[in-house]
Amino acid sequence: MSAASFLTDFHHVATFGATDNNGVERQAATAEDKLSRDWFAEFAARHGWEVRVDGIGNMFALIDFVPGAPYVMLGSHLDSQPLGGRFDGAYGVLAALHAAAEIAERVAAEGKVPVHNLAVVNWFNEEGGRFAPSIMGSSVFAGLMDETEMLQVADLGGVTVAQALEAIGYLGSDQRPDVAGYAEIHIEQGRILEREGLTLGAVDYSWHTQKLDIEVLGEQSHTGATAMADRHDALVAASKVVLLVHDVTRKFAAEALVSSVGRLTLEPNSPIVVARRVHLVADLRSASPQVVAEARGSLMADIAQIARDHDIRINVNDFDIREIQYYPQDGLELTEKVAANLGLGVRRIRTMAGHDSVAMNRIVPTVMMFIPSVDGVSHCEREFTTDADMVSGVAALTGVAWKMIHGALAETSSQPDSTKAFAS
Amino acid sequence: MSAASFLTDFHHVATFGATDNNGVERQAATAEDKLSRDWFAEFAARHGWEVRVDGIGNMFALIDFVPGAPYVMLGSHLDSQPLGGRFDGAYGVLAALHAAAEIAERVAAEGKVPVHNLAVVNWFNEEGGRFAPSIMGSSVFAGLMDETEMLQVADLGGVTVAQALEAIGYLGSDQRPDVAGYAEIHIEQGRILEREGLTLGAVDYSWHTQKLDIEVLGEQSHTGATAMADRHDALVAASKVVLLVHDVTRKFAAEALVSSVGRLTLEPNSPIVVARRVHLVADLRSASPQVVAEARGSLMADIAQIARDHDIRINVNDFDIREIQYYPQDGLELTEKVAANLGLGVRRIRTMAGHDSVAMNRIVPTVMMFIPSVDGVSHCEREFTTDADMVSGVAALTGVAWKMIHGALAETSSQPDSTKAFAS
Repeated sequence: MSAASFLTDFHHVATFGATDNNGVERQAATAEDKLSRDWFAEFAARHGWEVRVDGIGNMFALIDFVPGAPYVMLGSHLDSQPLGGRFDGAYGVLAALHAAAEIAERVAAEGKVPVHNLAVVNWFNEEGGRFAPSIMGSSVFAGLMDETEMLQVADLGGVTVAQALEAIGYLGSDQRPDVAGYAEIHIEQGRILEREGLTLGAVDYSWHTQKLDIEVLGEQSHTGATAMADRHDALVAASKVVLLVHDVTRKFAAEALVSSVGRLTLEPNSPIVVARRVHLVADLRSASPQVVAEARGSLMADIAQIARDHDIRINVNDFDIREIQYYPQDGLELTEKVAANLGLGVRRIRTMAGHDSVAMNRIVPTVMMFIPSVDGVSHCEREFTTDADMVSGVAALTGVAWKMIHGALAETSSQPDSTKAFAS
Repeated sequence: MSAASFLTDFHHVATFGATDNNGVERQAATAEDKLSRDWFAEFAARHGWEVRVDGIGNMFALIDFVPGAPYVMLGSHLDSQPLGGRFDGAYGVLAALHAAAEIAERVAAEGKVPVHNLAVVNWFNEEGGRFAPSIMGSSVFAGLMDETEMLQVADLGGVTVAQALEAIGYLGSDQRPDVAGYAEIHIEQGRILEREGLTLGAVDYSWHTQKLDIEVLGEQSHTGATAMADRHDALVAASKVVLLVHDVTRKFAAEALVSSVGRLTLEPNSPIVVARRVHLVADLRSASPQVVAEARGSLMADIAQIARDHDIRINVNDFDIREIQYYPQDGLELTEKVAANLGLGVRRIRTMAGHDSVAMNRIVPTVMMFIPSVDGVSHCEREFTTDADMVSGVAALTGVAWKMIHGALAETSSQPDSTKAFAS
């Protein structure tokens, strides 16, 4: 691999939907997303790789070594959050493309046929900022979400996934490739690697996460003419819910639970009308399902009390529950071996964020790796990772993928002993 | 006046934009607003009255008795809040049309020419739910707001006032009629008349009101991967501001101050992203400017503290400040005399809500009357006033208007002695 050509391509892709403050605005199936997709297809065509687009907009670039063999797939996503960072997702796709190009050259040079074929994937709508739920394309691929249902999901403007993909020319109908394994590299989005001065994380498990869909139903009235005592202000009650969702984390050890409200909409949202309805989404995550369950229980009780205090109705529904997923043990060991060969510092690390690899890990042996995030910030314009760390990550992914196309991990289960995984 | 024909027309107009729960959704310059405007024009045409539409979409129906004389104007507004009530505004316009028709008949029957001509007005965008600020049409008419500037105000979808009026065919260019006086009748939107068993309120002054435009600037981050300690969550800080705006009313005597946040928007508003920016509008109102000033001071200090606690920026700007306006003394006495003649119970009453009459009172002698609101609720679908009270109100407006076209109030100032007005 040429570090220079990788970096040139990475920084070029960061211009698609670039914002004034070094971020990107490239939400799923927008014109900016199309630019990055066209570039992906052009990169594949230039290398002579077949490109397929499936029925949910996932893009695959296929490199055939063995006619009829399944593919080891490398990838991530090119879509971003609104005013998001230029590393989240895009780094993983660019690393995969360059790792694949390097491997294709080495296979050709060696003249020895590997066990599996190789593919690079750009998953549709990992971010979920425009179309919820997130991790949509890989979850449909893995059979965890229904394609027909997902195609009907609409954004806040009423445009469906099917319409948006059609509009940018990426509602495909190609056959999905058979898959033998999956590897992904991503920025950490936390501060652990940076704090410990390490270059690589071998992701051992994903956190338990769930969301709460909360609807606060007050009564619409006049902000001037209605007496304070006669109001049933949905926004006042909702504000208390937002603070509860934040403060519940204090009931547990520091950082044992993270919990936030990121979406909130108000009706009618008029400056001189007391709100009748507030809809909000809370996101709870922990390494421990028990902590999430306790936090949820505490919130349910406190929310019920707020409803009584304000004489209004609050409906709460669980959704998007994602249980802890363990990555295969021999994948962790493979990452550690490759890191050692490259002289890169490595540690095992959990992911609090969801990733396409979490979905893929449900169906095939999967390796997930992290590289450091400066200051641990992510989903924002000042998200940053150094060129040197990115280049090291591409080398690690190349090493892991090389072993995988030659048969590593093919026989393992994705669910090792849980006690052992938790001890890391 | 025929009570039956007034009620038929009132309940017919309530079908334009009718909602499932007896309210109306008829925001300014929408297709539903156009229906009510077309009906207004048709009513005027049927009575042989000239209709004019001015450059901000105000509609005038002119009844000429004396060539060249100025007009006593009666009216209110046909636009509504989102999911608003069917009485707010529409009652005043319907009452004005039927009062005017009755007066025209009586003038013709008597054969005596009055001092002034008579007009009915449907003011544009009193509610301000779609296009802020509210009380737009009458404020432009009164020279309190700039027409060119108001035509450029955009709704949340980016459509300007000029575009919206053009789209429904009500961006006019007719000359505004000269005005000699103004009278308006409206539902109280509070519980005072109902509690005291009175039919009529003679409005003596409007409350002091002001808004605060508040921008909370945090840092966008990941709801999962970012440690709680590293977050600068704009929504958590904004929720504390919403509660402060509500709780500040408790520092004063019961109902001496009303204060609410009715509008709040979140960026980026994605379920898995900690918000970077929240924009909200607080509305403060009191009979006492000192109370509003004290509440504002208290909020400014507490908001500054929240900004320090969360290490984020909060920008606060005053806007839409409306000082107490007193209605003319002889208008109050006229209302009381007319009520006595009709056998209606009456009292003096302040308005906490803004009205078109508050703007008109700045330029001509103005009378404002209230009829009761059941349960005091308004700006919502269950807003209600009885047919009997509505019919009594039309009779009162007719009586007041009759005196005004014959010269009552023509010589008065609109700013009586303030001590006296406050004593009511």
